[in-house]
Amino acid sequence: MEETTRLAESIRELLAAGREERLAALLDGAHAADISQVVRDLEIGEQVRLFRLLDPQQAGAVLAELDDQVLLELVRALDETEVSKILDQMPPDDVVEVVEELPKEQAEKILDLMEEEKSEEVQELLEYGEGTAGRLMSPRFVAVNEHVTVAQAIEHIRKSASAEDAFYYLYVVDDHEHLVGVVPVHRLVTAEPTTPIRAIRTGDVESVTVDTDQEAVARLVERYDVLEVPVVDANRRLLGRISVDDVIDVIHEEATEDIQQFAGVAGDETVLDPPREVFPRRLMWRLINLGTATLAASVIGLFEGSIQTLATLAVFMPIVASMGGIGTTQTATVVVRGIALGEMTRHVLARVMVKEVKLALSTGLATGCVLALISYLWKGQILLSLILGIALVFNMLLAAVVGTLVPMALRAFRIDPAIASSVIITTFTDVCGFFSFLGLATLLMRFLL
Amino acid sequence: MEETTRLAESIRELLAAGREERLAALLDGAHAADISQVVRDLEIGEQVRLFRLLDPQQAGAVLAELDDQVLLELVRALDETEVSKILDQMPPDDVVEVVEELPKEQAEKILDLMEEEKSEEVQELLEYGEGTAGRLMSPRFVAVNEHVTVAQAIEHIRKSASAEDAFYYLYVVDDHEHLVGVVPVHRLVTAEPTTPIRAIRTGDVESVTVDTDQEAVARLVERYDVLEVPVVDANRRLLGRISVDDVIDVIHEEATEDIQQFAGVAGDETVLDPPREVFPRRLMWRLINLGTATLAASVIGLFEGSIQTLATLAVFMPIVASMGGIGTTQTATVVVRGIALGEMTRHVLARVMVKEVKLALSTGLATGCVLALISYLWKGQILLSLILGIALVFNMLLAAVVGTLVPMALRAFRIDPAIASSVIITTFTDVCGFFSFLGLATLLMRFLL
Repeated sequence: MEETTRLAESIRELLAAGREERLAALLDGAHAADISQVVRDLEIGEQVRLFRLLDPQQAGAVLAELDDQVLLELVRALDETEVSKILDQMPPDDVVEVVEELPKEQAEKILDLMEEEKSEEVQELLEYGEGTAGRLMSPRFVAVNEHVTVAQAIEHIRKSASAEDAFYYLYVVDDHEHLVGVVPVHRLVTAEPTTPIRAIRTGDVESVTVDTDQEAVARLVERYDVLEVPVVDANRRLLGRISVDDVIDVIHEEATEDIQQFAGVAGDETVLDPPREVFPRRLMWRLINLGTATLAASVIGLFEGSIQTLATLAVFMPIVASMGGIGTTQTATVVVRGIALGEMTRHVLARVMVKEVKLALSTGLATGCVLALISYLWKGQILLSLILGIALVFNMLLAAVVGTLVPMALRAFRIDPAIASSVIITTFTDVCGFFSFLGLATLLMRFLL
Repeated sequence: MEETTRLAESIRELLAAGREERLAALLDGAHAADISQVVRDLEIGEQVRLFRLLDPQQAGAVLAELDDQVLLELVRALDETEVSKILDQMPPDDVVEVVEELPKEQAEKILDLMEEEKSEEVQELLEYGEGTAGRLMSPRFVAVNEHVTVAQAIEHIRKSASAEDAFYYLYVVDDHEHLVGVVPVHRLVTAEPTTPIRAIRTGDVESVTVDTDQEAVARLVERYDVLEVPVVDANRRLLGRISVDDVIDVIHEEATEDIQQFAGVAGDETVLDPPREVFPRRLMWRLINLGTATLAASVIGLFEGSIQTLATLAVFMPIVASMGGIGTTQTATVVVRGIALGEMTRHVLARVMVKEVKLALSTGLATGCVLALISYLWKGQILLSLILGIALVFNMLLAAVVGTLVPMALRAFRIDPAIASSVIITTFTDVCGFFSFLGLATLLMRFLL
């Protein structure tokens, strides 16, 4: 990553000095991914200057790597003919990644200006829903009939594949064009030229349809360690292929989604999204949180009389709730991640519950004793300290149960368990924490005064 | 994934009926990843029965796919000779994944029982630190001198590579065995046999050393869309290669780590870890949380007199703190994830800060008005409602600043920003939430009564 930093500095200096020729030479030898990393941190005017120094092929590769927000601003600053010429140089699935981010009108204008064949290919891909295998796939692949020999297959590849198109599987189809297997390219190299392809193809091949969710595609790649996933129609006729580098992007997206939804943030928010776009989702969760906090407050309201009598209760009250909060967050985080990775199933639910209850008891007793000691040293009331300790252990136990069961229950109802965000789950321990502590204190009030 | 469910059911039925022969036939046609998924949900006795029906090669593949905890129990239940025979059939890097999880004594016994050559290969890999490229790499690769022709290279591959060993890059070395480039296998297929390898190899190739952190390896694969990363020594001599399927596992591990550390859980905890192992980390964060909660409580303690005078304050107090909590969590989650993905750099810090402050003001005003209305309807005190609204907006603003700056500051000090877990950051808004609300109320107390 140090190289990128050095590249970034050189680019800044050359841009500031206006030495465009020297800059063009530097960019020519750089990797598109590194250039795009530099582009995103520049002012828009400098972005455009730098971008115009790239040859169309490299410019396309840089565009394909940019974050949505940066891409949008840059394309807006360039003119449409310029953009269309760059897109003409890119593989159709990469063009899709760029065009799908643009406002509809601008996208249509640019597609009109592009070469007809490429434009049509792109528009076909754009018809598949976002987040589906169809939207992700490349319609370019190499396929041969299962009856040809290795030598014939190699001959076919030489004729049809351009040297630039990376491919690692040769697809094998029967006489009706149905996908029947694949041959990893390295097997082509090691096989005898006269061997029939049929003899070296894999048995069955995992494929998906254009409607398959991209998450399912990612799980397939992870589980079976394949480098490409073929996309087929209802008759198992090959339509395209999804390669592992696109799948890695999906894995990142899904991880971001899981992390952010759990915290009450839209799953695809990035640091540079405009506030206007982010506002509704952020506000929604803040309002939900206001609702749950008000619910917890109403529990306190029930005990207003006790607090009036003994204001010290108000001092310790948030500690019990806060400890329940971390208890649920820790448990639910491990459970939600376990569900996402397929490790948390109903078969292991009982074992997980036993683990969490043991942890709740052990850490609850330990922290309960510490809290009792702190409160005794502070206020000198042994009964109050006891009540605090007991309420804390109780709340930790509740946290273990709620943190395990709520995500599993949501999953059973086919709701994304990440939605069981901290906001929702901690409501239980807030409400019960206030209730158990203040309730116990009220019951024993006459001994506390 | 439906197929796995069906496979699991058939296996359960056949195990229960004791039809081992039928079961063996079923397992023979199944994928190792699917079998391992089924194994983990079985009782240990059944796991062993099923496992002994697998041929050694498939048994090895299943072992390599199992979670640490399940693996440990299963290996303990089998005898060492049995395990060593299975490991003999596995590629050395997969053996490492199994052996590194076992207790030291058992691991040594098993390595002693293995074939000498394989055992030595494995022990060499085990000398590299956990989480490094050395521990992750396979020492098997195909390399040719840059002066050979494509035909000669293919001849060399035919002789040296077994058909089972998947490989997608041919490594190219100079006369001193230094790595100078790679040739993706598909290029070998399309090139003329008389072409010198030198002419079709890539320019420079990104490589790592045995000490490189696995996270850096993953970033390299993501950034440059490569399928394998070569591992070299200080003199650029090739030692091994890391393939993309191992990198995908690393990406998952890292995402889990980010998610869990943020919630105060050890980054590698899985749902089935024994409570004993998990206890120290869980307890540590619960104790830290107890400390920060006590800090917040001590702020309330400063205003005990005001609460004694007006117990209603205690009812609304947690709402202001809770709203600050969701504010910091939302902001910090997006920022921490942005840092992990390389999108959040100091160049964009100012823009992100403006975004977050705008969001804090807009959502703060909206939720502040709602809270003021709720409290007015509940208690009928217009001044109290005003104080609540103002304290809430103030706390949301603080949340925006803290949620952005704390992770960035930690990163500047080279501390993992995910450690800036909710526990730490929300302390700020807890303390300030209580302080601003109770402070304002105390200042204006005589108008409140």
